[in-house]
Parts: sequence; structure tokens; C-alpha cells
Amino acid sequence: MKKYAILGFGVVGGGLAEVMADQAQKLAAAAGEPLELGYILVRHDYPDSPFRAKFVRDFSVIENDPEVAVVAEVIGGSDAAYDYSRRVLLAGKSLVSSNKQLVAEHGAELAALAREHRVSYLFEGSVGGGIPLLRPLCRCLAANRIDQVCGIVNGTTNYILTAMDTQGQDFDTALKTAQQLGYAEADPTADVEGIDACRKTAILADLSFGWNVDPDAIPTTGITKVAPADLELARALGYTVKLLGRAARTPDGCCAFVEPHLVPLGHILASVNGVMNACAIQGSAVGEVVFCGPGAGAHPTASAVAADIADAVRHTGNPMVPDLGAPGGALSPADELVSPWFIRADAAPDAVLAAFPQARPVYGTSGECGFITGPMTRRELAAPFAAAGGRAVWRVLA
Amino acid sequence: MKKYAILGFGVVGGGLAEVMADQAQKLAAAAGEPLELGYILVRHDYPDSPFRAKFVRDFSVIENDPEVAVVAEVIGGSDAAYDYSRRVLLAGKSLVSSNKQLVAEHGAELAALAREHRVSYLFEGSVGGGIPLLRPLCRCLAANRIDQVCGIVNGTTNYILTAMDTQGQDFDTALKTAQQLGYAEADPTADVEGIDACRKTAILADLSFGWNVDPDAIPTTGITKVAPADLELARALGYTVKLLGRAARTPDGCCAFVEPHLVPLGHILASVNGVMNACAIQGSAVGEVVFCGPGAGAHPTASAVAADIADAVRHTGNPMVPDLGAPGGALSPADELVSPWFIRADAAPDAVLAAFPQARPVYGTSGECGFITGPMTRRELAAPFAAAGGRAVWRVLA
Repeated sequence: MKKYAILGFGVVGGGLAEVMADQAQKLAAAAGEPLELGYILVRHDYPDSPFRAKFVRDFSVIENDPEVAVVAEVIGGSDAAYDYSRRVLLAGKSLVSSNKQLVAEHGAELAALAREHRVSYLFEGSVGGGIPLLRPLCRCLAANRIDQVCGIVNGTTNYILTAMDTQGQDFDTALKTAQQLGYAEADPTADVEGIDACRKTAILADLSFGWNVDPDAIPTTGITKVAPADLELARALGYTVKLLGRAARTPDGCCAFVEPHLVPLGHILASVNGVMNACAIQGSAVGEVVFCGPGAGAHPTASAVAADIADAVRHTGNPMVPDLGAPGGALSPADELVSPWFIRADAAPDAVLAAFPQARPVYGTSGECGFITGPMTRRELAAPFAAAGGRAVWRVLA
Repeated sequence: MKKYAILGFGVVGGGLAEVMADQAQKLAAAAGEPLELGYILVRHDYPDSPFRAKFVRDFSVIENDPEVAVVAEVIGGSDAAYDYSRRVLLAGKSLVSSNKQLVAEHGAELAALAREHRVSYLFEGSVGGGIPLLRPLCRCLAANRIDQVCGIVNGTTNYILTAMDTQGQDFDTALKTAQQLGYAEADPTADVEGIDACRKTAILADLSFGWNVDPDAIPTTGITKVAPADLELARALGYTVKLLGRAARTPDGCCAFVEPHLVPLGHILASVNGVMNACAIQGSAVGEVVFCGPGAGAHPTASAVAADIADAVRHTGNPMVPDLGAPGGALSPADELVSPWFIRADAAPDAVLAAFPQARPVYGTSGECGFITGPMTRRELAAPFAAAGGRAVWRVLA
């Protein structure tokens, strides 16, 4: 029997306590022994909670209880969560987390601490919520040189883009609906500006290429500039629009970026709609594999964190710490990555064809046209884009 | 340093030796120590092979070498492979395998032997080839009661159905092309009659529901009866046709079956084309997750087997043996599973509507019509099907 503790009793923390109780038997089988909830660190009262007997407000109670073998940090952010996480590891306890900000910003340091103290540090829930993603990437694909990861890793923006595509809504209307449904926060900046996707992309890059990537160095464009006309023209061309976080191996190391992409309608990622997430991974032996599922939510994320708790216990004395890489050089510039591009332009066909002789422009209800360019870098695109009366440009997933 | 051996030097065995050499450093990191190829058991000469120094023809050399810690069985079938697999475990060595027939027919017995001898028994490559699927199902989703698994688990039939759908070919033409491309064997029976899919469905059911399911008890329908008209009418109704292996939890235990299904075009499984495989898993906490990728081929399957070798070494003394379940009662009858149905019929609209008042039949080039029924069991369907002049009936994935 091993005791575990939960730090935080928000959406994920509450879901985690429920899932651990609901599937206690299966989790005990996975862990190799029964798991007992020791404490839940809370900041507020929840007098009606069935878990209230386990509430503590003083972290040091958990820190100093030698029976607590694993601690799940589901507070979020990088203030208290960072301090507690370090102290968990320094106390010789395994740490599991769904906190993408903390993993992206301080994961390598925490991983080193975990190795030093011979405990596990697992964070499956930090990317893709409930989708098994990081363990498959690190363990099941261990026989592959990873060449690229490409994911829809933020459910809020995918919900908004899906609503814009299928219901013809503009960004503001779709955002408002997402907020009403609880899919977007009152301040949606971190989601719609791509900051959340950027953190998850950093974690995927860390695990794939052995470089510990600074999330602040990842060029990030959110979805606030995606216009209804982009979606209308994209669909007429056989594409939909998705916010993709991508990281790819390059001759100099790796590049990583987050930006809206046109995705061909036949591609699996184009079928990933609403708040669903997905990640495509290219490996040298396996080719391409894609993982899809719910990228957020109390129980899906708790599903990932609970499995990490069981795995940490299963590996007592034989700890699991994914390799988040060492500090590397500068990222290769994403603008040098050759790809086709979608251009929305306010121009007559002859002006478009003068700038892009291969273009097959389609015209939408607004009078603007859209077309797909041949493969080129963003730099090569600049002059003909201006000459063709370009209004918007998005990368195409080839 | 740990030694491993490979039994068999066919497509997968050859690919495995290559992948292990190619990614030696990454695999050593995953295993926690370097891995050294000890032997390859061969039946023929391959005088030009770079691995020929490791060839042996006598299994007992491997069996009796105490330095060999892990043996990969990639022979296939259940004759020599079964005998060798037992002897590997009895010799106290971990066993990894991509042999779906052996896992489906004798996996539970081999798992018990592995537990008894405190060694690992892993078989990630037996279902879905290179797709990380069984480890995510068993480990990452350990906090879920699994309610259903539903997969495109045979690449040959998916290639044929894709060619029939997108190129309008009939079954015989598509099969011939598949054979020319190496996607189908000279005797395609095991693939096109669903036998291969049935074995994989049995393994998925074993791991999901804790029952060890006899593959011979799984009702199995292949794709030889799928007509071009079915695909034409399906598409007109907004569907495509996929051979699905399904297993679902029922009040009495579980049901499992393999049969062609109509899949809505918006569903992720509808985008899985050609020789790709995919599996959708429904869990109590996570909801639905879907895994897609190459379901066969030398290097994809070797990618899975190689990761199993590394994992077996990583877990020396702490062995990993997935639970393939205990012998259960009879499977719940699949015919009692309520679903909508697609019917192809040779009938005028009034005859169709007399039998199925809610039907919206569409007519194809052959003069036959197709429509989707309401949810019902196959038994309830029989009488109106005959009354409507039904020619073919396929289950619809709802």
C-alpha cells in the first residue's frame, strides 16, 4: 500500500480524487499495490466534499509525512506549484503533474532533481489532456528518431475554429459561445493567442529532439486574425483551418512554431473537431502515427494523472523520468521552413497569376480570392504576396 | 549490457535487426543499459546479410545461453513459435512478440508462464503494427473502465475498401492491385475473410474486459461480399465502408465481432485510408481516444518490437505482463447489439417506406437504393429487410 497526495482541488484535482476512488482496483493492479489518498492540499473550504476528511492547508504536512510516496501537482501556474514541486522531489517523493506551464518552463530542472533523488517525475496530462501521448512518444517509439511532431494541442481554439468553419461564425461570436459553454476562460488570452499551445509544443519538442526548448523562443501566432473569409476560401479549396503546434528536426537542431495552418480535408487532423486534440508524430521506423482525444476536462486529464500516480508507484526504486533534453542552441528559424501557403487576396485573377503563375484562385462571397502557392519559405513569399494584393497568409500542412 | 535474440528473419525479423542497430543509442537509454544482439534464429541462408555472423539454426543455443535476457519471437503462426515461446519463458528469459495468432490463441497461458518465471511478456506489435496501442490501453488508460474498442486492424482489407471507394474498383480488381503492391498475400483468405482482424480483436477484448476471449467464438464477416454499389450508396448517404473489429462491455460480460461497417465521413476512422490502421477506445474517465498509424510493414512493426525489447530490459526484476484475462463465459451475442443499419435494396420507394417508414432511400447507378435504418437489433431487422427487397445489410457505426 502506498499513500499519495493531491495538491490543488480545482477542476483537475476534484476529477482526480473521483477517478482514483472510482477505479481503485484497476489502479492498484497497474501500480502493483493498493493506493491510498493521504491528503488534498486546498486553499478554500468545500464543506460538502466527500473528500473533506483529507483536506489540509499546510503543505509541510504532506512534505513531512514519510508515508506519502507520490504527490500530484494539479495547481497550475509556476508560483506555488514550482515551490511545492521542488520540495516534493527534495523530500524524496515522486512527482506527477498536469501543469504544462511548469513542465515547459522548469521541467528539465525538476527532472534533474527527480533523477538525483531516485524518484519518478511524470507529466502525461500536461499535453493532450487525457490522450496517451508522452508515454507513447518516449517509450513506445523509443526505436525511432523522431523527425516531426505536429499537434492540435489547444481545445479552446479548436472549438472556435470548428464553429467558424461549420457554422460560419466570426471569431468574436465563436469565442463568446465557447465562454458560455465553459470551453474558454473569461480572459481567453492564453488560449486564443497560442500561449498554451506554445507551452505544449515546447514540451513535445523537448521530448522529441533532446533540446530543452525555451517556450519564449517559439514563434507563436494565435487565431485572433483568422477571418471567416479564410475559412470559406479554405473549404472551397479543400482545406480547413487548424491551430497547429509543430516542431521538426532540422540540419542545425530543431525548429518549433505555433500558427494557424490550412489542413487538407482528407487528413486525419482535419477530422479533429470541437474541443478534441490530436498529435501526429513522425518517426524514422514507424512513419506517421496520430493520437486523438479530449485535450482537457476534469476526468480526461485526471485519467492521465491517475495513471502517472500508478506508474510512479509501480516504478518505486526503478524511477521513470522522461528526458526533457539539455539546453541547446537557438531554434532554427521557422520562416526558413519550406511549405505551400494559402493566400487570401483582394485582386483580379490576372494580378494573382502575374505574381503566382501556378495559382488557381477561387473567389468567395466577400469578393476576395484564395489560392495555394507552391512550396517556398516565408521570405520568398513576401514580394509576390504584396504584388498579388495579399490580405492574409497562412501556412499549409503538406 | 543485456543480450537479446531474434527468432525468425522474415520481413519483421529483418526489419527488427536493422532498427535495433539504427537506434542503438536511443534504445539503450530507454532500456537503461546497452543492448547487444546475440543470435538470430534462421531456417535459410542469407549469405549477404550484414547480420550473418549472428545466425544460428539451433534454438537450443539461444535457450541455453544464460546471457540472453530477452527473446523476440517474430516467426508467426502457432507451431514452432508456440514451442519456442514456452521454452523462452521456461528458461527465465523475457519474451516479446508481434505474433497475433499466438497471442490470441495462447497468450494467457504464456502470460501465466511469464508471471511464474518473473519475466516480461510484451506484444505491442501484435495489434496495430507500429501504432502504440496496447501499452497506452493497459498503462496510460489504467484509470478507466474500458467500455468499447473499435478498430480498423487489418491493412489489406482497408487498402481494398479504400480502392473500391475512391477508385470505384470491384473487390477482385482491388485485391489484385493489393497483391501486386505486396499489401495482400497470394492466398489472401486470412485477411479478406477477417481472420487476422478477428485475432487482433480477441487481443483487444482480452486486455479491455479481463476475459480471455477465444478468437474462434468471435462472429467474423470479411469484406468479400462488399459490393461497389454498397460503397457508391454509402458515399451518397455520407458514409464510407470500413472493416471494424469491435468489442464492447455488456451487462453480461462483453461482446466482440468483426464485420464491415458504414462509418460517417466526419468520423476520424473514415479518414484512415489505405493500409493505415486505427483503433478507437472508449474509457470511463477519458471518453474516446483514437490511435492511428501503419498497421503492418517491416520497420513499423519492428519499431513496436524493439521498444518492447528495451522495456523488458528496463523492467528486469520488475516484470511487465499485460493481463490477458481469465477464461470467461460465452460472449454476449453481437446480434443483440442495437445499432442503425445500412440496407441496399432492389425496391421502389413505396416498398422501402412500407417496411421502413423513416427511411430516406437514395438511388445509385445500378438502380438499387440504399438507406439507413433506425437503431435496432439484427433480429428485429430481418422481417422488414426481406419486405423491402433487401440485397445487403451492413452495420452502421453510430
